[in-house]
Amino acid sequence: MLPEFHSKIFEKEQVQLGDTTEYIVRGGRHLFSKLPEAFEGIKQIGVIGWSSQGPAQAQNLRDSLEGTGIKVVIGLRAGSSSFAAAEKAGFKQSDGTAGEMFEVIRNSDMVLLLISDAAQTQQYPAIFEAMRPGTTLGLSHGFLLGHLQSIGADFPANINVIAVCPKGMGPSVRRLYEQGKSVNGAGINSSFAVYRDVNGRATEYALGWAVAIGAPAIFQTTLESEYKSDIFGERGILLGAIHGLAEALYRWFKAHGAGSEEAFLRAAESITGPISKTISKHGILAVYEGLSEEGKVEFLKAYSAAYHPAFEILMEIYMDVASGAEIRSVINADARFKRYPMGKIDGNEMWTVGEGVRAKRVESEIPVDPTTAGIYIATMMAQIDLLTEMGHPYSEVANESIIESVDSLNPYMHYKGVAYMIDNCSTTARLGARKWAPRFDYILTQLAFPKLEQGGQIDEELADRFLNNNIHQVLKVAGELRPPVDISVVG
Amino acid sequence: MLPEFHSKIFEKEQVQLGDTTEYIVRGGRHLFSKLPEAFEGIKQIGVIGWSSQGPAQAQNLRDSLEGTGIKVVIGLRAGSSSFAAAEKAGFKQSDGTAGEMFEVIRNSDMVLLLISDAAQTQQYPAIFEAMRPGTTLGLSHGFLLGHLQSIGADFPANINVIAVCPKGMGPSVRRLYEQGKSVNGAGINSSFAVYRDVNGRATEYALGWAVAIGAPAIFQTTLESEYKSDIFGERGILLGAIHGLAEALYRWFKAHGAGSEEAFLRAAESITGPISKTISKHGILAVYEGLSEEGKVEFLKAYSAAYHPAFEILMEIYMDVASGAEIRSVINADARFKRYPMGKIDGNEMWTVGEGVRAKRVESEIPVDPTTAGIYIATMMAQIDLLTEMGHPYSEVANESIIESVDSLNPYMHYKGVAYMIDNCSTTARLGARKWAPRFDYILTQLAFPKLEQGGQIDEELADRFLNNNIHQVLKVAGELRPPVDISVVG
Repeated sequence: MLPEFHSKIFEKEQVQLGDTTEYIVRGGRHLFSKLPEAFEGIKQIGVIGWSSQGPAQAQNLRDSLEGTGIKVVIGLRAGSSSFAAAEKAGFKQSDGTAGEMFEVIRNSDMVLLLISDAAQTQQYPAIFEAMRPGTTLGLSHGFLLGHLQSIGADFPANINVIAVCPKGMGPSVRRLYEQGKSVNGAGINSSFAVYRDVNGRATEYALGWAVAIGAPAIFQTTLESEYKSDIFGERGILLGAIHGLAEALYRWFKAHGAGSEEAFLRAAESITGPISKTISKHGILAVYEGLSEEGKVEFLKAYSAAYHPAFEILMEIYMDVASGAEIRSVINADARFKRYPMGKIDGNEMWTVGEGVRAKRVESEIPVDPTTAGIYIATMMAQIDLLTEMGHPYSEVANESIIESVDSLNPYMHYKGVAYMIDNCSTTARLGARKWAPRFDYILTQLAFPKLEQGGQIDEELADRFLNNNIHQVLKVAGELRPPVDISVVG
Repeated sequence: MLPEFHSKIFEKEQVQLGDTTEYIVRGGRHLFSKLPEAFEGIKQIGVIGWSSQGPAQAQNLRDSLEGTGIKVVIGLRAGSSSFAAAEKAGFKQSDGTAGEMFEVIRNSDMVLLLISDAAQTQQYPAIFEAMRPGTTLGLSHGFLLGHLQSIGADFPANINVIAVCPKGMGPSVRRLYEQGKSVNGAGINSSFAVYRDVNGRATEYALGWAVAIGAPAIFQTTLESEYKSDIFGERGILLGAIHGLAEALYRWFKAHGAGSEEAFLRAAESITGPISKTISKHGILAVYEGLSEEGKVEFLKAYSAAYHPAFEILMEIYMDVASGAEIRSVINADARFKRYPMGKIDGNEMWTVGEGVRAKRVESEIPVDPTTAGIYIATMMAQIDLLTEMGHPYSEVANESIIESVDSLNPYMHYKGVAYMIDNCSTTARLGARKWAPRFDYILTQLAFPKLEQGGQIDEELADRFLNNNIHQVLKVAGELRPPVDISVVG
């Protein structure tokens, strides 16, 4: 259980999620007037980095803080080609709203470190060194804490360390903020965490930051819980598992008589299209309930065959993340790719077929294959059960296992293909997806498919736990807190 | 380069391997008379554990030391069911040649720690505690050093730490020792390492130990070099890569029109049968030279397509092993399997087909598929090149990349199937093979096969480096040092 947080500026609200209680803050433009109070003591916010989150958060902050006298300044490596892009968005070296990163860090009261995971692990000693005592370090992801823990190190003792982690990619954080001007409640939800509070203001800073970038709902977590669930989740159902499941299912359908296009429809399109849409709009159970009686039996057999194998791989991922082994492996990769750049994975037969299928897609004719649904949802439920067992708050469990998947990543995969999405996400995510997808593929092929080939069996206890899982109520509540506009990037 | 070692008891011999020089010691029964001198100061050798190496090494030591007054005593957990097996082999609690492990450790002058990797990492504090200052710890594998390094710990400063690592499974170490009574030179080669020498006798102890268990040739290494190459090698060509390659090739041949049995012959039987046999008897180049002109072109195209992708995964494995990430992951697994025991992997379609193919096998009719040969040998050469680049001695490179494969593991796989072999090896090896096989499979499918499907190209520089690699001469020299009898366990 998280300790209750306190704010003198923002109202919190209690929500009942399953058998637990969480406190949230609802954001909104009407709260922008409170930002000067929330950011008391902060004259300059330095936003370091200009890749995905950097441009979005810097622009949203600047717009929300207009007229307050709080300056938002972009910090980049000297000579970085991103200075031009930042200038286009109005951050100029000439007027002091862009500058060399260490100078910006030295001159800022709050530093939002939005450079890549690899860059953070390489540059943190100099960054920590440059920060003045009593200032605030802000992160949008806990990777750096994971790295510090794995080498027995820590953040400096004399600065605040906080995080605000938007539940969407940078471009969505910007687009929904802009939509929020006209559509009430548009914006990307965020979690927030206070890792270190040296002046008693860290919680206000974090909530102010989340409000300023436009989060309609703000959930509490810890930096450790965030990085574990985030690094784990993208290796699991968000990217790694869906990739491996789609590959294994595609092959399996073909081995049992389906043509290439039919197999692709049943293995990949089925998940990224109607299954995701149904979960997003009506919850996980609605997928099951929408099946025929025969389909329900097929679903439960597939669910029963896949749940334990998926749980096993997910446990392995979670333990590797928690022990630091996975983080070490990501850091190793960075050195390796200087010699061999990562190759693309979407060139093989399956994804070439997929391109053709997408080109002539009729959305309403995409089937919901009951076996695919059973296997996909079994993996999703295994992830939910594991995260819950590991003590993550339900808001985080729902986000890292369901919402980010069906509202953000799967729609993008539906638009561009699963393999393309993986080739084009962050290095940490891409590495993890490439590393673990084959493991999901193999374990299904080795343990789940042979059972289905022998007719399959329904594990009544598993089926029962699925039908009565707390997550269904959690998702309903969390769903009501989602923004009223589409958050995915779909061209 | 390894520092030259010195012995007053055993003669060393210089061998030229590629562009390097190594010193080896040739063993043999005629040296048994020197063992009392080599083991000066040692009255009792405690052999801890009774799984694979334990029974073999304990019996060989006892037989070789007969009449010298040096006692060999088995140490096991109190109440272990292995006491019965040890008693069958003549080690009895009643006469003091078997006992509770910590008592045996306290009373021994030399302790050979032959329990599983996981058990070593759990019990080492108590084991170190029980060892008297000035005594000797012997290992047959450097895993424990890898673990200690990954947590910033070390062996006690007041004991000798040495290793003798036989290049074969326990049962072969015993069988060839017995064959050595009648066949001159039969026995399993070993490497040896001295990690810590507190009394100036560690090298003599290590060489004496290797001679006593029957090694016909004894190579020098370091404990660190040993664990890295060993843990890496089994994840690479020895187990992980061959498993992944066979699965990927099987699927690929089927996708291009082969029936199941033909695909299995070309993908798996081809490697474990004729390719391995040719490499074992005539070297790697002989496989290439045995092909038709057309076959050679096909081989070189496959080699060119597979070398870089294989090198990339091998680099990832090596870095994960060297950084401690892989060892941490193995230790995590041990905890995990208390909840979910590891499932078998040999139940899927490919390995079921394989069983049928083996049952009606006509050895002489197994084809050497040129694409399979090119991909398998590219992966083997990538491993050789990487280990050489990382500074491993050529004797170790040849052993961990070729000899152990073609003389020991592949013949066993030929007899029982690749997947069966993996289901039945040590936990560390099994975990690694299951973890990395899918990665080799995916990267071939993603990067190598698409190239071959477009007709393929020969990379002249790669082909040249293959044909003129130092390893061919190294393997020739190392081949002459192999025992004259078959070392594999084939039923």
